[in-house]
Amino acid sequence: MKQIAILGSTGSIGRSTLSVVETYPERFEIVALAAGKNLEAAFVQSQRWKPRLISVANEKDAEILSARLKAAGIDGTEVTSGPSGAVRVATHPHVDFVVSAIVGVAGLEATYEAVRAGKTVGLANKECLVAAGELITAEARRQGKPLLPIDSEHNAVHQCLRGGTMQEVQSIWLTASGGPFLHKPKAEFFRITVEEALNHPTWKMGNRITIDSATLMNKGFEVIEACRLFNLAPNQVRVVVHPQSTVHSLVEFVDGSILAQFSVTDMRLPILYALTYPERVASSMHLSVMDLRHLDFIPPDMGKFPCLQLAYEALEAGGGKTVALNAADEIAVACFLEGKIGFEDIPRVIYEVIAATEAGQLESISQVLEIDQEARRVAREKVRQFERSTLVGQPALREQ
Amino acid sequence: MKQIAILGSTGSIGRSTLSVVETYPERFEIVALAAGKNLEAAFVQSQRWKPRLISVANEKDAEILSARLKAAGIDGTEVTSGPSGAVRVATHPHVDFVVSAIVGVAGLEATYEAVRAGKTVGLANKECLVAAGELITAEARRQGKPLLPIDSEHNAVHQCLRGGTMQEVQSIWLTASGGPFLHKPKAEFFRITVEEALNHPTWKMGNRITIDSATLMNKGFEVIEACRLFNLAPNQVRVVVHPQSTVHSLVEFVDGSILAQFSVTDMRLPILYALTYPERVASSMHLSVMDLRHLDFIPPDMGKFPCLQLAYEALEAGGGKTVALNAADEIAVACFLEGKIGFEDIPRVIYEVIAATEAGQLESISQVLEIDQEARRVAREKVRQFERSTLVGQPALREQ
Repeated sequence: MKQIAILGSTGSIGRSTLSVVETYPERFEIVALAAGKNLEAAFVQSQRWKPRLISVANEKDAEILSARLKAAGIDGTEVTSGPSGAVRVATHPHVDFVVSAIVGVAGLEATYEAVRAGKTVGLANKECLVAAGELITAEARRQGKPLLPIDSEHNAVHQCLRGGTMQEVQSIWLTASGGPFLHKPKAEFFRITVEEALNHPTWKMGNRITIDSATLMNKGFEVIEACRLFNLAPNQVRVVVHPQSTVHSLVEFVDGSILAQFSVTDMRLPILYALTYPERVASSMHLSVMDLRHLDFIPPDMGKFPCLQLAYEALEAGGGKTVALNAADEIAVACFLEGKIGFEDIPRVIYEVIAATEAGQLESISQVLEIDQEARRVAREKVRQFERSTLVGQPALREQ
Repeated sequence: MKQIAILGSTGSIGRSTLSVVETYPERFEIVALAAGKNLEAAFVQSQRWKPRLISVANEKDAEILSARLKAAGIDGTEVTSGPSGAVRVATHPHVDFVVSAIVGVAGLEATYEAVRAGKTVGLANKECLVAAGELITAEARRQGKPLLPIDSEHNAVHQCLRGGTMQEVQSIWLTASGGPFLHKPKAEFFRITVEEALNHPTWKMGNRITIDSATLMNKGFEVIEACRLFNLAPNQVRVVVHPQSTVHSLVEFVDGSILAQFSVTDMRLPILYALTYPERVASSMHLSVMDLRHLDFIPPDMGKFPCLQLAYEALEAGGGKTVALNAADEIAVACFLEGKIGFEDIPRVIYEVIAATEAGQLESISQVLEIDQEARRVAREKVRQFERSTLVGQPALREQ
């Protein structure tokens, strides 16, 4: 029995992980959960999984949940809260495997502590590697424990890398669906609405990652993640647009052979792979020939999707720049979702924040969090500037 | 330095192997060659590679070659001939690695003896596994030496299998270009000419294998090879038509992940892979994103290509039936190339010969060769019957 902790149990990846655990009850046991702000979901999960420990957003929520669990006759579950609660979940002594799926930089500290505690970590949180990749991978190497990617692209790369040694890798090709605006003319980008941007053609995901997919920033983050996770140079990581999302990534070896991973677009598959690695366990998530039919591959249009270009630039500069990239994107996307700025303002905000941040060398998680805070402050300031100049296509304005 | 012998050095795969050896002179040395009937090519190869031993078709050719080499001042190369000469090449004491690339059942004995002598064998000859797969794979297991597939499809499978264990394989999908007649209506098959059948859309290969690609019998042979090489059940090996020949095959694992190998359509790539395995060595044979562009996958039409169905049936029946399948196809294709029978007569001849052959259990290479001889005799008899009934589209008739 593998003893599992989930950071971000009430989010999209967290729920998919619980679904995998439910399918293989003989293999996995839920020991600890870090839930988000959805207290009802945290209660339902506690009831169903009876973890030894559950952490919620804050102390007040913890008291409410505690009372509800007591009333429901569940007394084996300790309730805790806040960032320190998430760290306790991540480092719980009974846990073997931690699924890191808190969205945003909020998941950083707990993930780092899980690695430091010698846990095997399945990484679904992008920000850990984007903001503090060098620190986390160095610590995992020190612990001699693998970091197993749950992102479908990096999971695909992990699978394909088994076909050779790291020295034999020429490059990796991350596939991108291209998002909902692959075929939309650049001239119409200024009036993209929130509803349009949330309508992803192939994957059902959380809101932030869906917008990041529409701007291709998500792919930019993945380029950074891939470099850090697999220790590759930026020019070894390429992006190729593949609208069908059937091929999840490709690895090109020095001899000219490319290995690619195909599968259904269901996050439970990379989760299952990470949870059972190095084994493969039978599932019902199989493709048929009919699912393949036509597959297209085209180079990405950096001019249309400047966020991807910004990610490569931040990666090349390194250090604080990628922390700023992520922080600025998180703010910009949130403000876009709130209708404060337009779709095309997202890269403008990020560009300004990166320019205002020193590259530098990252020494600690607390330093990362400081740079992150400062970048958010600058990002909010930039948003306020753009807010005044925004004219078209924003729900806030349309409602006036 | 890996010491190489090539069985079939003057054929298509033989020449590609020499081209690979030429590109990596620091890695490989040519020790022994078994050439075909092309005496001029055998002379040129002897001059260029100065092997310790070269075998030609017969004693008379050996005398001529010997004299020419002496006249050219090359005295380090011993000349031998015939099937026993090929066996001497295959088992030469200085040889580490034998490339088995004699087309047809003629390569069987020498390949088997190479395996028996403990050489690592790179298999490009399909007939070895189609006619005597159980015997050869059993002997390789006994010797503890790998059989490395050079066929692009099996080579692709070999690469993809590195992504898991054999117990984790659900099925393999062999890709087929579909040949030149993928889109030709079945109603027009009766008047297919030799020239049309030799015009393969994606691969440049020898004549027999090109016709076998047009009938899909080549894919049928590959299904049989795959079952024997990778120890799979017939229903674990599927065929998928992929006209671009960019994906060379796919392996589906039990968890639902599929790994696929992509590369240029150049036989030097699988040859290099086999010669350097388990290493991968840098080459200039790389794909670009533009080479991928559109990839199509469609199920094969067994009604239009009955040879593929015949191969599955022979495989299910086992033993002598697959020997007969190969022998009958070799005769039928040769007679088609000579204009004696039509394109649609090829499966008819094969069907009759398989029906006339006992399945039985194969005990020895000599028994295989006996069944092979008898199947050829029956095939020639059937050809004579069909010859009389053929009316249209044959060069022999058109010239009258």
